[in-house]
Amino acid sequence: MRKENVKIIIWGLGAMGKGMAEALLAKKGVDIVGVVGRGNKVGKSMYDFLDVKRGNRKDVIIGTRDEVITEKASDLVLLATDSYTRNAFDKMKFCLEKKINVITTAEEMSYPKAKEPELTKELDKIAKENGVTVLGTGINPGLIMDLLVVILTGACLDVDHIKAERVNSLSPFGTTVMHEQGVGTTVEEFNQKMKEGKLAGHVGFAESVNMIADALGWKLSKKVEQTMAPIVSKVYRKTPYVEVQPGDVAGCKMLGYGYVDNELKIEMVHPQQVEPQLEGTNTGDYITIKGTPNINMSNKPEVPGGIGTIAMCINMIPQVINSRPGLKTMLDLPVPRAIMGDMREFIEEE
Amino acid sequence: MRKENVKIIIWGLGAMGKGMAEALLAKKGVDIVGVVGRGNKVGKSMYDFLDVKRGNRKDVIIGTRDEVITEKASDLVLLATDSYTRNAFDKMKFCLEKKINVITTAEEMSYPKAKEPELTKELDKIAKENGVTVLGTGINPGLIMDLLVVILTGACLDVDHIKAERVNSLSPFGTTVMHEQGVGTTVEEFNQKMKEGKLAGHVGFAESVNMIADALGWKLSKKVEQTMAPIVSKVYRKTPYVEVQPGDVAGCKMLGYGYVDNELKIEMVHPQQVEPQLEGTNTGDYITIKGTPNINMSNKPEVPGGIGTIAMCINMIPQVINSRPGLKTMLDLPVPRAIMGDMREFIEEE
Repeated sequence: MRKENVKIIIWGLGAMGKGMAEALLAKKGVDIVGVVGRGNKVGKSMYDFLDVKRGNRKDVIIGTRDEVITEKASDLVLLATDSYTRNAFDKMKFCLEKKINVITTAEEMSYPKAKEPELTKELDKIAKENGVTVLGTGINPGLIMDLLVVILTGACLDVDHIKAERVNSLSPFGTTVMHEQGVGTTVEEFNQKMKEGKLAGHVGFAESVNMIADALGWKLSKKVEQTMAPIVSKVYRKTPYVEVQPGDVAGCKMLGYGYVDNELKIEMVHPQQVEPQLEGTNTGDYITIKGTPNINMSNKPEVPGGIGTIAMCINMIPQVINSRPGLKTMLDLPVPRAIMGDMREFIEEE
Repeated sequence: MRKENVKIIIWGLGAMGKGMAEALLAKKGVDIVGVVGRGNKVGKSMYDFLDVKRGNRKDVIIGTRDEVITEKASDLVLLATDSYTRNAFDKMKFCLEKKINVITTAEEMSYPKAKEPELTKELDKIAKENGVTVLGTGINPGLIMDLLVVILTGACLDVDHIKAERVNSLSPFGTTVMHEQGVGTTVEEFNQKMKEGKLAGHVGFAESVNMIADALGWKLSKKVEQTMAPIVSKVYRKTPYVEVQPGDVAGCKMLGYGYVDNELKIEMVHPQQVEPQLEGTNTGDYITIKGTPNINMSNKPEVPGGIGTIAMCINMIPQVINSRPGLKTMLDLPVPRAIMGDMREFIEEE
């Protein structure tokens, strides 16, 4: 086993970055050696922003990119700042050129060639030139509506049709997510924002559908299609971050479609809302495969989005460090697993 | 893409070997180039034993080991002859020394170091010396009660307890399985056979439990424990291969236990029987993880054992061909996936 603890830098101390920092502090054989933040966080202790006391741990002062990310300053950077490959690109490039591996929460990076084939090639090239690896992952995209689907097809001789459904609660999320999903708006406002392209909704259908299709060797005959619609509440709903009046929008229902030879082969169903139980909606993750044999998987309730994404990023650290260099996806690497032992034991000897 | 089709030899033309042959004949970019059989099968056409017509395909004559398995005669051998590593050892060695990759259905080979640490090291050494790879897989062990458990823990920050339950039907299976599981015997006969060690039951608990523990970094504090008990039928049950009178044995219920620091952490529950629906038993695969978060997965009905094992072996062919040399387990390789396209597209360029 290697002697030195695994060294991690966290870039971005929002909800995901904070969660990853707290999770890592509970693990053995791994240290947070730096945090990149911005604005008035710079110069302060990481612990000022965490629900974990510093105790007698060495302090970690939040710094700028150039202060924290120097050549081989850590084994890996957890980058939790963006949803889109294009926006995260310069940050990933910066880390890779400092010969540091990267795991990012950017949804598009879970299967970046779906939307950004050119940037994908460039990142792969940069990673290889510097002998390091970059991976995008999370709970979804990353596991529930793609990798888990793929592994279940592994039990099939033939697959005719795939439906992945994730019915989840947005109640734990803050104001950013409420804005991105249009929660608490009127139906008119929702539709107006949607028209203007101001609702992000779920980012990941193109990635999940392309990942599944490539995994199985299906050629998509057209671009992944998706629709977005308001989930209109019949009742009053309330969370610490949003209030929804009856008749207003409690969430955003997205559907996605992947076609092979112009036949619908992959269906994504993903309604996200606050307080779904108030109208009797049972949350859960569902995968239905028509094939030989049929698969009817459910996981109830759903894996929560926040914890799930934090876990997936932490749990893939060893696989990324052990990987051959380049841009990798969840299809390329050994399966994620909860790291319950000393993280150093998961790192292969050179 | 490589020009030549992927070349496969099948060793053993029992139920599994036959199913693999039929499945491969339905796939693109792959050829069966040889079959090793025994007894009066030798010298006959493979198609005499398949439910697929030869059509205008080139014939494949069943041969002996020495006739069929010559140096680099194929990319991979599918070995479907044994349950135990010890019994399959010489066959695997023979293939590896001919510089051919191996996938075996031998249950113990899914995680061979659980029972045969010495043979595991030796196989790893032989495989590496010859630049090829050997993998044991199947539906269970191989996926349902181990790899699928592991991947679901990937969504967890912490895991406290794991229960994997597989409630399945033995109705599709033939006389060998009925004997191994004691189906159709009286309770007295079952108990007598069990005492004499003549009931195999399910082979795989030690492998599945060790795989899960190693994946998570848990150290088992004692050997995996297991129990076996008859499933006594209240009603008359019948399949093409067995008859069960009320009061007699319809199946075999096995329980397995993995302890970490003497605390029960991993539980296996696996009752197998013919015609379970006659007493209202709902078959299915269930994974319950107590942790952060909890996971409550079910797949109903269960993935059928025969088809599932055939699929897993076929679907792992590319990963094994692409792998670095050595003895690998499902923990080491990218996830299985249904191969719906040309198999050659799944093979990485040298």
